[in-house]
Amino acid sequence: MKDLTTARLNTRIVLAEKPQGPLTAGQFVRDEAPMPKPGLGELLLRTRMLSIDAANRAWMQSATYRDELKAGIVMAGTGIGEVVESRDARFSVGDLVSAGIGWQQYGVVAGDQALRLPACEPLSHLLSVYGSSGLTAYLGLKNVGRVQPGETVAVSAAAGSVGSLVGQIAKLQGARVVGIAGGRAKCDWLVDELGFDAAIDHRAGPLAHRLKEAARKGVDVYFDNVGGDVLGACLFAMNPRGRIVCCGAVSQYDGATPPHGPRGVPGLIVLKRLLVQGFFLPDHYAERDAAHAQLQAWVEGGALKVPEDVIEGLENAPAALVGLLAGENRGKRLVRVA
Amino acid sequence: MKDLTTARLNTRIVLAEKPQGPLTAGQFVRDEAPMPKPGLGELLLRTRMLSIDAANRAWMQSATYRDELKAGIVMAGTGIGEVVESRDARFSVGDLVSAGIGWQQYGVVAGDQALRLPACEPLSHLLSVYGSSGLTAYLGLKNVGRVQPGETVAVSAAAGSVGSLVGQIAKLQGARVVGIAGGRAKCDWLVDELGFDAAIDHRAGPLAHRLKEAARKGVDVYFDNVGGDVLGACLFAMNPRGRIVCCGAVSQYDGATPPHGPRGVPGLIVLKRLLVQGFFLPDHYAERDAAHAQLQAWVEGGALKVPEDVIEGLENAPAALVGLLAGENRGKRLVRVA
Repeated sequence: MKDLTTARLNTRIVLAEKPQGPLTAGQFVRDEAPMPKPGLGELLLRTRMLSIDAANRAWMQSATYRDELKAGIVMAGTGIGEVVESRDARFSVGDLVSAGIGWQQYGVVAGDQALRLPACEPLSHLLSVYGSSGLTAYLGLKNVGRVQPGETVAVSAAAGSVGSLVGQIAKLQGARVVGIAGGRAKCDWLVDELGFDAAIDHRAGPLAHRLKEAARKGVDVYFDNVGGDVLGACLFAMNPRGRIVCCGAVSQYDGATPPHGPRGVPGLIVLKRLLVQGFFLPDHYAERDAAHAQLQAWVEGGALKVPEDVIEGLENAPAALVGLLAGENRGKRLVRVA
Repeated sequence: MKDLTTARLNTRIVLAEKPQGPLTAGQFVRDEAPMPKPGLGELLLRTRMLSIDAANRAWMQSATYRDELKAGIVMAGTGIGEVVESRDARFSVGDLVSAGIGWQQYGVVAGDQALRLPACEPLSHLLSVYGSSGLTAYLGLKNVGRVQPGETVAVSAAAGSVGSLVGQIAKLQGARVVGIAGGRAKCDWLVDELGFDAAIDHRAGPLAHRLKEAARKGVDVYFDNVGGDVLGACLFAMNPRGRIVCCGAVSQYDGATPPHGPRGVPGLIVLKRLLVQGFFLPDHYAERDAAHAQLQAWVEGGALKVPEDVIEGLENAPAALVGLLAGENRGKRLVRVA
């Protein structure tokens, strides 16, 4: 009897309190709730892995491409789930899907909101190089960055899930690559392990001068994951007709939005005829299959390394997110749930 | 004898002193210098008209697409000149050209730097609708703004040389147009005379709320001539996938560059997938003839009004520029020299 009862409970991580300043693990609580039941057209999923992203924190600040998160709800998050009960004829028990399951052992999602996943070994690659990180890196460079051989590409949060792939992909496309990351160890790793041409530690003082040293011919494409002062420094380093891929603003997610943007807007945009464009992956889904095929060819050929940082256990998801915001991960951070 | 001597002198307006704060007419002096002589490949031009532009002021701040202006030189400026002596076989005495003659009665320019002008009545249109103002308005909307029928276009410095044409052209392309200008009288003029759908006085308090009222469906294209707080307000009003044409930053030319850019960069660019792009007319010269033909068809058909503000006399050029920076002009400001 006890086993049966236990099996019918669902462990969840609830956002108990909205952060006013930096997020802490104490703002989450773990609870157990009755097993959710799928309605018509819905799927009951068992969570296998959760993607840990800076966006999780941004959702707590304000409405983005989704509603603002409220206190008291199961923490929102995307992950890989296995179908354990299907009330959508398009899915069968055992199917693997990508969906916004949330931080819980089991979740119910609409079939329309689930994306069937191909078989993949390791499974984690479906959330990293073949998931939004890889597709964003590849399609952001292609459709906004339009990188050409011989150009110089700079990327911030370079040791992160997107940045670590952006730099390698730009190298594969014949560019010179400068990474910007926090701390000497990550910078060394970018150069020694991932083949970046140079890496700059943004914690070691103002960037402008060191960026000039590292990118003597100027920057043609800047892939911005952080915004703030790093974006400001890159605006000064950009070459005429340079492109800035605005992919994220992680420097601004774990606190109040700063009252001002970077100096040089719009002066330097006008002067250098820069193109500055926001990138949101779903706008580019028409190219998903082609991008996947290219990424797979690189990974399977050994040309593209896929750094992953897998944290074990649903209960560690809060600390995993707090640590990600502090920059402790290298590559894609994931939580393995089951 | 006296006449001959007089004829050999060239009246010039010299930038005597670089402005530290707002520009004043007292920072210029008029002098008379010996007539310049063209060398091989050069033209001696008699200045007919000078274009008065916010860019004249920006050139005093720092290097732009030209060297920074130094104190003690003839004030730089573009105008229409008539060839009075040619040492370039491609030009004959009497030809009209557009060139960077400077603020003087006569100037020498390289033939390579002069653009032959077609006959035009009135001549002033060659510096307004058929000059850089008209081409910038048309090609900026076309190539960066990519305005579609039914969209909402906002334009700042809307009563200025570029803005007054941007609004009218966007209307001709089926857009709803909101102008942003300084003062009630100019706003009324935009609506009553130029056919804008709405106009907002940026001097009458914060813009955000009034912009929302005037553009209830949000802004799809913002043609930015001013930067600063107006750009900041428009970023908040933009619709997803909106386009911002960064054409100028006149709010920042007549003083020190502000230490920060507008709030919302890059957060709103990411969130709304905005395209923000600097526009510099020479990059689009391949389309100059086609643009000219379209503008001419509109002007001659009466569909496009060409507001011009002609100041008489070279000696009034300094006051004309100071007044332009204060926003006293409607449409293209010119100085008629001869």
